[in-house]
Amino acid sequence: MYEVSPRDGLQNEARPVPLEGKVRLIEALVRAGLKRIELTSFVSPRWVPQLADAEELIRTILPRSEGVTYSALVPNTTGLERALRVGLPEIAVFLSASETHNRKNTNKSIARSLETFAEVVPPARQAGLRVRAYISTVWGCPYEGDVPVERSLELAHALLELDCYQVSLGDTIGVGTPLQTRRLLERFLAEIPAPRLAMHCHDTRGTALVNCLVGLELGIRDFDSSVAGLGGCPYAPGAAGNLATEDLVYMLEGMGISTGVNLEGVVEAGRVAERVVGRTLPGKVHQAGPPRVRAS
Amino acid sequence: MYEVSPRDGLQNEARPVPLEGKVRLIEALVRAGLKRIELTSFVSPRWVPQLADAEELIRTILPRSEGVTYSALVPNTTGLERALRVGLPEIAVFLSASETHNRKNTNKSIARSLETFAEVVPPARQAGLRVRAYISTVWGCPYEGDVPVERSLELAHALLELDCYQVSLGDTIGVGTPLQTRRLLERFLAEIPAPRLAMHCHDTRGTALVNCLVGLELGIRDFDSSVAGLGGCPYAPGAAGNLATEDLVYMLEGMGISTGVNLEGVVEAGRVAERVVGRTLPGKVHQAGPPRVRAS
Repeated sequence: MYEVSPRDGLQNEARPVPLEGKVRLIEALVRAGLKRIELTSFVSPRWVPQLADAEELIRTILPRSEGVTYSALVPNTTGLERALRVGLPEIAVFLSASETHNRKNTNKSIARSLETFAEVVPPARQAGLRVRAYISTVWGCPYEGDVPVERSLELAHALLELDCYQVSLGDTIGVGTPLQTRRLLERFLAEIPAPRLAMHCHDTRGTALVNCLVGLELGIRDFDSSVAGLGGCPYAPGAAGNLATEDLVYMLEGMGISTGVNLEGVVEAGRVAERVVGRTLPGKVHQAGPPRVRAS
Repeated sequence: MYEVSPRDGLQNEARPVPLEGKVRLIEALVRAGLKRIELTSFVSPRWVPQLADAEELIRTILPRSEGVTYSALVPNTTGLERALRVGLPEIAVFLSASETHNRKNTNKSIARSLETFAEVVPPARQAGLRVRAYISTVWGCPYEGDVPVERSLELAHALLELDCYQVSLGDTIGVGTPLQTRRLLERFLAEIPAPRLAMHCHDTRGTALVNCLVGLELGIRDFDSSVAGLGGCPYAPGAAGNLATEDLVYMLEGMGISTGVNLEGVVEAGRVAERVVGRTLPGKVHQAGPPRVRAS
């Protein structure tokens, strides 16, 4: 369980969430038992003013971490310097598998992104940081459509060779279906061990869980999610972006797979998230709650 | 694809939908390519005033059917007489696997429900009608909790012996998870051929699709759904009840499984459904739409 709500969830809020709201959300996530939490991003505050309090947030949260690994996105060497100054134990780098999406999202070509990572990852590793990597638009791109799996695979190899410990494959626009997911992951797993891969599924068309189940059957054990489905709502109000943490926990625990996360605690964190952003969130277990009666 | 929105979707609307709204919805469903549609229920109008126009609706729709099989719920011999008078080709009987839910839903014990079916199904069959059957609360009951699979299995045998052509197993409160679904269906399929079974999943906790995928892998080929997830919202506003037809079509077509149903047509039918009930509906493909770009 890799929780992305403080970063991926809050970066798109029209009204930036104040620091104390972020802290309340993160504290609720920790109470729920989440052990890997992505706090923020060291992008320029001019681009993402919602995350301009990155240093202050990390300085507030880090001393309280007990067995929790916090991370933040780092887009460049300036971001790395900021991460090193506040003493984060882990960072994440990110790019897209499709050229157009990468340019729109990072203002760089894919080749330039890889050059940047070559300047960021080695010094981060030398400083003792763990480095995770994201590849977006692996299942499809909103601008280019289908994305050849070979291109994503090549990028994954490049990121692992830079000594990223894990590459999270993103269905950024939530188009994946189970057969596509099976074919795609089988291609990856033929060359890359499962623990080096994670899945970052969006539930835009309701297929996030079903794609995670396919990944699970193929040996994937690391899944990104966001409490109550916070974040990534590019379409209609109420439309889903990120896979909701509760929905994933509900499915996994119902299959007898221990997540270490408390479902009621995540539901409570989802209520905190709703208060913090001031609107209803789309996650299904979030809205329905855990079953009220399970045994007579 | 067995479409339940005109009946299961509209029976719970606070304001009864006028006849012309129902007709518009059904016409849109037919345009989308749906071939099995449950129109209404012959319950007493005192119990369900929303469906008091059953005869009028069927008389309006039936002459227009072209290759579409229409059905309606029949709770008793009075209902059967009404169905026979309007010339419906198919009816459905229904009960719950849990005693408390059956009493709350039908005001009868399970034993009394089976006695009623023994008065309804044989004359219906003699009159040339196809008879489908529903068993609710197979995955769990909101009052009794876990429901022993042996009880549901026994009911399924009784319904098939009465010459129902298919038994649709209902996860009425949407609690099912993939492992539970696998164990449950394997138990059924050890004794009953797959074409005699259907699944009626609710997406209350986001697991409807994933449970359908498990059923699909085990040989189930008949799935109930409701356009845009119309109906069955017993919890919060926006919470999901019925599995959305679009979400199921999107997954199946994306797996190369031809449903005979046009995804854009179902999305359009979902828009009609929203106008007819005057509120936003929860289906995810309904909200997000089909992918805007699929190939460059």
